[in-house]
Amino acid sequence: MNNIKSYVENNRDRFLSELIDLLKIPSVSADSKHKPDMLKTAEAVKKNLLEAGCDSAEICETPGHPVVYGEKIIDKNLPTVLVYGHYDVQPPDPLDLWNSPPFDPVIKETEIHPEGAIFARGACDDKGQMYMHVKALEYMTKNDALPCNVKFMIEGEEEVGSEHLAWFIENNREKLQNDVILISDTGMIAKDTPSITTGLRGLSYMEVEVTGPNRDLHSGLYGGAVANPINVLSKMIASLQDEDNRITIPGFYDNVKEYSEAERAKMAEAPFDLEEYKKKLDIADVQGEKGYSTLERASIRPTLDVNGIWGGYIGEGAKTVLPSKAYAKISMRLVSDQDWENISELFTKHFESLAPKSVKVKVTTHHGGQAYVTPIDTLEYQAANDAYAEAFGKDPIPQHSGGSIPIVSLFEKELKSKTILMGFGFDTDAIHSPNEHFGIWNYLKGIETIPLFYKHFTKLKQAE
Amino acid sequence: MNNIKSYVENNRDRFLSELIDLLKIPSVSADSKHKPDMLKTAEAVKKNLLEAGCDSAEICETPGHPVVYGEKIIDKNLPTVLVYGHYDVQPPDPLDLWNSPPFDPVIKETEIHPEGAIFARGACDDKGQMYMHVKALEYMTKNDALPCNVKFMIEGEEEVGSEHLAWFIENNREKLQNDVILISDTGMIAKDTPSITTGLRGLSYMEVEVTGPNRDLHSGLYGGAVANPINVLSKMIASLQDEDNRITIPGFYDNVKEYSEAERAKMAEAPFDLEEYKKKLDIADVQGEKGYSTLERASIRPTLDVNGIWGGYIGEGAKTVLPSKAYAKISMRLVSDQDWENISELFTKHFESLAPKSVKVKVTTHHGGQAYVTPIDTLEYQAANDAYAEAFGKDPIPQHSGGSIPIVSLFEKELKSKTILMGFGFDTDAIHSPNEHFGIWNYLKGIETIPLFYKHFTKLKQAE
Repeated sequence: MNNIKSYVENNRDRFLSELIDLLKIPSVSADSKHKPDMLKTAEAVKKNLLEAGCDSAEICETPGHPVVYGEKIIDKNLPTVLVYGHYDVQPPDPLDLWNSPPFDPVIKETEIHPEGAIFARGACDDKGQMYMHVKALEYMTKNDALPCNVKFMIEGEEEVGSEHLAWFIENNREKLQNDVILISDTGMIAKDTPSITTGLRGLSYMEVEVTGPNRDLHSGLYGGAVANPINVLSKMIASLQDEDNRITIPGFYDNVKEYSEAERAKMAEAPFDLEEYKKKLDIADVQGEKGYSTLERASIRPTLDVNGIWGGYIGEGAKTVLPSKAYAKISMRLVSDQDWENISELFTKHFESLAPKSVKVKVTTHHGGQAYVTPIDTLEYQAANDAYAEAFGKDPIPQHSGGSIPIVSLFEKELKSKTILMGFGFDTDAIHSPNEHFGIWNYLKGIETIPLFYKHFTKLKQAE
Repeated sequence: MNNIKSYVENNRDRFLSELIDLLKIPSVSADSKHKPDMLKTAEAVKKNLLEAGCDSAEICETPGHPVVYGEKIIDKNLPTVLVYGHYDVQPPDPLDLWNSPPFDPVIKETEIHPEGAIFARGACDDKGQMYMHVKALEYMTKNDALPCNVKFMIEGEEEVGSEHLAWFIENNREKLQNDVILISDTGMIAKDTPSITTGLRGLSYMEVEVTGPNRDLHSGLYGGAVANPINVLSKMIASLQDEDNRITIPGFYDNVKEYSEAERAKMAEAPFDLEEYKKKLDIADVQGEKGYSTLERASIRPTLDVNGIWGGYIGEGAKTVLPSKAYAKISMRLVSDQDWENISELFTKHFESLAPKSVKVKVTTHHGGQAYVTPIDTLEYQAANDAYAEAFGKDPIPQHSGGSIPIVSLFEKELKSKTILMGFGFDTDAIHSPNEHFGIWNYLKGIETIPLFYKHFTKLKQAE
């Protein structure tokens, strides 16, 4: 199976151009005006799967955006790998901060990507990482190197909370039966420091609306006498965190696991340069929960961030208005045993209790997902470990990620199989940000590593 | 001079249609894309002045929007009234809250305007009130009833702080010489309760920008570890007012006059129904500085209102972003001896001091103006009092307004003459709000009252 390297080398340009074609379609799931683009992308992924060697592939309707399903069954007695990925992407705004159009992919070299990186929305999250699996399948089928069965479940709602994937899974348990779920939608530490994500944070995404007077008022005639919903909203948001940057919602920390000094020391071994981190973000100082390191704050601790806020006059110049309404999108990252639905309730109850009598408050839940932690003493993790060891020449580091893939915990519950998070992106790839990119080295290294997982997983499974 | 009533009655429909034509031009001074509309409006006002009887009228260029100047000099030895008004209007947004297009005027009856009111941006503030003076001049010239000289100075930047009016006045002192300045850009208490505005609040309008990381970040990968500029901005805004709703900027209250119990008791005589006030705004409670009544909070006390706030993702659905920047437009209403430039400096210094090391803060001043209080024991006030007494059958109530006309204090300083604020709007006219309107009764009553001021003022002047 050594000729995977040469196969990737010989097909390098085609692998890149195929991905670029996929990145040109603006599949923004959050924005209903992109519905046609979502269907177009699903069609393209179905075609890609068939060309890569799937026996069958189909576009499965859901109450929301469709799921693309494909499979290649070579022997019912062999193990089955289920690959999960998503073809939808985050909204590209703010557009003015992109150096090139988000859906007009360009290849540019960067300091940590001397071989070049593809700049486009979705390059890393998740079209690029999803497509590594398609090309890995192509290699295995074209070179008679597929050791087991494979199924693909590529959804279109990951960036909006996988609202209908649970529905899809419940209605397709039989079809989705597998021995392990493989996902590339996370990152790794560095080229010479392979890592596997063993923890993900949960998410609870809320939206709040504060209403003062029933119409916009003149701030001169009413200012000082009538509650201003923006001032009130600011006060309410400010009170959600205390001076130690701890979240003040009663019961919020009840199910948060406290790690032992030994466990924290082990995590602290991951290479991290705080000065470099601050320099890259151009910040004079970091800020977070008192008593925890930056890495801990961004992985094993829960958070509360305002993702968007708006109200009143936001145009050019000045307008002396006391607005009727103010809004904010607020999300919380959750850890260990925090239940996202319970946290959403606690948030709603607390936020409503913060409102003075002078305003009305409406709180709605956008979506959420549970946190996920995978043990590393399993056959599945061992297989992944062996694959990385063979591809990188060293064992990967198990690592907690601060991100969320809301659906992962549901996979285990519904499909009774373990999930392996083989991510090949870097934290600096600017996913969810302007100028998102994915290194060509990372893309090709992923294609090279994935077949090794199939090999080791099948071997270990058969040796059971 | 009694046939003013019949003249108004006979020309009612034309007076309305002429104003409606003026209201159709979207002269939004804050928005540069409306520059052509500003010029179009200035041209229309110039034409109106000439048709109403001015000997001459001109459009005077300034570094900003032009000033329309017109005059009718009947005798150099007679007193001169300088009429000030503005032809620019507030931005109309939020557009979706208008029941009819803001620049497509319609006449509708309302509870307090059974004779009908004109609904359009600028109907009351200030095109409608400014045009009352044009039609009053028409009456006086057409009926040989003009007792003195008159000058008009109609500017186009009042809603953006009259940025260049000071420049215009300094460069036209000679031309603008006058014995009294007459302005209709305020309100009155009720149809059966005439009032004259004897106090205006000052204004300091600021804009703040809070910058966290140098790019939008994924709130999962960085949330909890990097300062979120929206959360930080909310905390900074919240801290600008204490639990008693007093402004916490050091030195802010230094030059605020405390009124005596007797003075406060006199003001409290103005008719005001708190329950009605809350009902009209659909609020369960008012909110303001502890220790002061609603009327006091909205007139003789300074305030701080956020007029607009924005940052992060404000589109449809959800985006898990930790934004790079957050912004707010914040204005303060000032009273008595607070100097707006000093207050702007105090705000800037204090706001910068609130910023944690994890963010950068930029504070800019949009514009401002001084508060204004006029004595009522002057010849000018007496003339106004007599005009109202004759038109309404009762003396007007001197009243402090919460609004600001930044330029008024400058008039006295530069032109050495007193200003009389003869406003005919109601607080319920929704100026600066969706569905701004101006009662037909108010419009015609203004046209009827203004010539009486000319008569009494000239008489008193000549009797000096």
